[in-house]
Amino acid sequence: MTPIDFQTEPARYRHWRIECDGQIAFLVMDVDPAGGISPDYELKLNSYDLAVDIELNDAVQRLRFEHPEVRAVVIKSGKENVFCAGANIRMLGKATHGHKVNFCKFTNETRLAIEDASENSKQSYLCAVNGSAAGGGYELALAADRILLVDDRRSAVSLPETPLLAVLPGTGGITRVTDKRKVRRDHADFFCSTEEGLRGQKAVEWRLVDEVVAKSKWDEVIKARAMEIAARSDRPSDAKGIKLLPLERKISGDTITYPHVRIEIERERGIATVTARAPTRAAPLTLEAAHALGSFFWPLAVARELEDATLHLRFNEPAVGLLIFRTEGEAQAVLDHDAFLARNQNDWLMREVRHYVKRVLKRIDVTARSFVSLVEPGTCFAGTLAELLFASDRSLMLIGRREGDNRPPAAVMLGEANFGLYPMGNGLTRLQTRFLGEPKSLDRAKAKVGAAVEGKEALELGLITFAYESFDWDDEIRVMLEERASYSPDALTAMEANIRFAGPETMETKIFGRLSAWQNWIFQRPNAIGAHGALKVYGSGVKPTFDRERV
Amino acid sequence: MTPIDFQTEPARYRHWRIECDGQIAFLVMDVDPAGGISPDYELKLNSYDLAVDIELNDAVQRLRFEHPEVRAVVIKSGKENVFCAGANIRMLGKATHGHKVNFCKFTNETRLAIEDASENSKQSYLCAVNGSAAGGGYELALAADRILLVDDRRSAVSLPETPLLAVLPGTGGITRVTDKRKVRRDHADFFCSTEEGLRGQKAVEWRLVDEVVAKSKWDEVIKARAMEIAARSDRPSDAKGIKLLPLERKISGDTITYPHVRIEIERERGIATVTARAPTRAAPLTLEAAHALGSFFWPLAVARELEDATLHLRFNEPAVGLLIFRTEGEAQAVLDHDAFLARNQNDWLMREVRHYVKRVLKRIDVTARSFVSLVEPGTCFAGTLAELLFASDRSLMLIGRREGDNRPPAAVMLGEANFGLYPMGNGLTRLQTRFLGEPKSLDRAKAKVGAAVEGKEALELGLITFAYESFDWDDEIRVMLEERASYSPDALTAMEANIRFAGPETMETKIFGRLSAWQNWIFQRPNAIGAHGALKVYGSGVKPTFDRERV
Repeated sequence: MTPIDFQTEPARYRHWRIECDGQIAFLVMDVDPAGGISPDYELKLNSYDLAVDIELNDAVQRLRFEHPEVRAVVIKSGKENVFCAGANIRMLGKATHGHKVNFCKFTNETRLAIEDASENSKQSYLCAVNGSAAGGGYELALAADRILLVDDRRSAVSLPETPLLAVLPGTGGITRVTDKRKVRRDHADFFCSTEEGLRGQKAVEWRLVDEVVAKSKWDEVIKARAMEIAARSDRPSDAKGIKLLPLERKISGDTITYPHVRIEIERERGIATVTARAPTRAAPLTLEAAHALGSFFWPLAVARELEDATLHLRFNEPAVGLLIFRTEGEAQAVLDHDAFLARNQNDWLMREVRHYVKRVLKRIDVTARSFVSLVEPGTCFAGTLAELLFASDRSLMLIGRREGDNRPPAAVMLGEANFGLYPMGNGLTRLQTRFLGEPKSLDRAKAKVGAAVEGKEALELGLITFAYESFDWDDEIRVMLEERASYSPDALTAMEANIRFAGPETMETKIFGRLSAWQNWIFQRPNAIGAHGALKVYGSGVKPTFDRERV
Repeated sequence: MTPIDFQTEPARYRHWRIECDGQIAFLVMDVDPAGGISPDYELKLNSYDLAVDIELNDAVQRLRFEHPEVRAVVIKSGKENVFCAGANIRMLGKATHGHKVNFCKFTNETRLAIEDASENSKQSYLCAVNGSAAGGGYELALAADRILLVDDRRSAVSLPETPLLAVLPGTGGITRVTDKRKVRRDHADFFCSTEEGLRGQKAVEWRLVDEVVAKSKWDEVIKARAMEIAARSDRPSDAKGIKLLPLERKISGDTITYPHVRIEIERERGIATVTARAPTRAAPLTLEAAHALGSFFWPLAVARELEDATLHLRFNEPAVGLLIFRTEGEAQAVLDHDAFLARNQNDWLMREVRHYVKRVLKRIDVTARSFVSLVEPGTCFAGTLAELLFASDRSLMLIGRREGDNRPPAAVMLGEANFGLYPMGNGLTRLQTRFLGEPKSLDRAKAKVGAAVEGKEALELGLITFAYESFDWDDEIRVMLEERASYSPDALTAMEANIRFAGPETMETKIFGRLSAWQNWIFQRPNAIGAHGALKVYGSGVKPTFDRERV
């Protein structure tokens, strides 16, 4: 199978249009039925598959970086009488369990990126539901700050997954209904088990949409609401966006190389080594210089490459169960870039870069692979790159030097990036989550900012899991990797999903940790995917047959 | 199959002993290998199945009600060199998916009851791990306030489910490790993927246990710690416990009758009607009178019956997918009992009753069936009984009277019980959860305490989902029940689990909503239960074969 490629650009879009009009951008969904990932199904009625979502993800990203002048984004449909019919059901019926789960995860990450734009980038989303929005279509609308529904006595919002397909709304729909829009639980129950959904004033009363608008006033009201939103934004009116240039990616056998990231896959062991590289040039001295670098600015560049690598491994390399994180380069160069980023958070572009790096790290947190960081001489776990260490399930560090290796002993170097720039989905930094049970350790770590913390001290400070002398190193690593590889991939996925997010829950962690787990379960039950399951027989005219036992 | 019976008493225990010594009780686990629910497996090494857990649940309950003088409970093993080997693996290998899930749920509810005793009843638990505690054995220990581990260079605590069985610790283990004991995430990762677990000082350093104690000082230190705990308790020293008398339960065909609860099963429709009855006598005037009533005191009596009914339906009637809640009797009698309970919360027994009713209602919240309340003339949704209404996924109310029926129109009556006595697992009352998005509605409801709120007003106040006139009633109910019955039971289970707990998450909701969902998923993956899955081949000498793809 051709690997799925997550890189695209507006000129290549088949399903979306970005129409900019000063402070307002219209993001128009107009799905090409023949433009799906696979020729096995047609994307009718603005239904979507991953191909559609890859473009949406790209568009949301580019609007932030390439259009600083855009303060309000209006999502609407380019088709008559239908907003979006949700995820394509034939695609769901044919896809593997793994693809379905990864698809839902990616789609939800895009929804979160939309919410992140509204919250942190003051580029706020308005969803203009100009036709029915069903399932994933309404879930897309739920990601917006404000939902307008056309009042044509026909257009409705609905989550018909349970009655129609025997699954759940898979990309956060239920949680956004109950926890974001705080729809009353019995109303949510009715709504989520009603095929036809709700429309008109009732949808407003139940808080499913914010406003219903007569067809005659539709364009006028949308424009007015978008202008209201735009007026509350702090985005600059005179700034120039940067262009997100295509990634330089070379695939050669089992090695993928980007300028700052390298993936080496060992297929037999099911392991990929992901090496991230520190900047090779000094941090810019001025904001002008940083802007001039555009997508070459190191934090942005390395994050884009890490994101592409992560998505590639998720979708195209399912049998790679464990990622080894390595880093290389000059620690100080990372800390200098981090400091520049932190210092300039009132600049629109530096704000975008920070929140983008944050989102990429969150993608790693919810990736269903084991992560092990290896901290050896020559590595560079510093600042932003040390977040990979703290995102790891385990980290191992070599104490001292290896014989014949003149490089200094391995060291971890903390910086501002580790104390607030990149919160996890639970709202805490990775170090806060790590030290949930020992808050003093956080202070002790903070006191070490900028210092090279070597093996024994890093162990004592709790920054790594284990430290070994060089004569134990190879054996310890080998045994650990072999052991991990011998465990059930499912059990590891579930275990890691539970261990990574201690502490407070947010809507985001609820979606990934609770709703998605249930969806994962349902997605493989015979009632959904068996020969007579609802997903399989949908559209055939045959009614599904259910095992009636409750579990 | 013989239905599983949840009623027992110490004289009939085969697996536990309660040994009282003044302020301290020892709860001694000494499992009879031949005493499992099924003869298909032997409960070796203090491993357990539901039979063992039913006794533990009973013991935890009786210690609170029958032993007010007990301030500290020490759980220990009655066997040499083993504390508890966890849930019996052969049992797990043979049980249906539904039984496994229900078993884990019930077991976790008992763990929560232990934590509730420590927190709200000042009868605190200490776990004296005098031998290895593996899997569910360590999960049992995790429920205690304090864990002591014998330091014999052999005894360890472990959660070997992932490496050994390809599943998760199913009854809250991971979440209690990360969120209750706040074990660092990489330590938790190592611990949960290490078959042999941890022992000695390392187990203390990692916060897995509170103390390791030399064998020579074992009994002495346990006694001392128990006395320290006891000294902090406010339980009375001169009170007399009440006896929890056997429930009067009559099973006749598809009807089960208790004094205050009746279940009528309609097998064809997959529906059970659960009718709860208000007290038939007036509330006691004095505490002495209430104590004299013992387990006949209405709130306690009706809760015990509801609990038994709920557990019976969960385990013995899996194909009954929907429960209709009905109530009958005098609303004022309920409110009077509630007021008595609320007024006397400084009495140890009334405190026990309140927290017990709370726990029973929480059992209902996490029961995987649809709940519909029907509020008609003659029903009594008042105070404590109105919690059934607010626990329902939907509630329907009849407006006015039916022709030829002289009874007054149906009314809901709120009381103190609805505003704080019985918080849900998320820490909020059912009304707070209901009105998460409209806090003013909570105040409006509060203003109606003691008033008979009829159909239209109840709808307007948001206390019910829908209200119908008598000429629509039968059709509306019929259509709704038919529709619900036509949906996938799995999809409903998952949907309800997500909708019922909006708002804040607690350790408890995390366990039910996140950990259990993942466990549910794993429990049916081929890597665990396929012909070559880890649960199936365990003990056979054959190594499991895993599909290596990550999902």
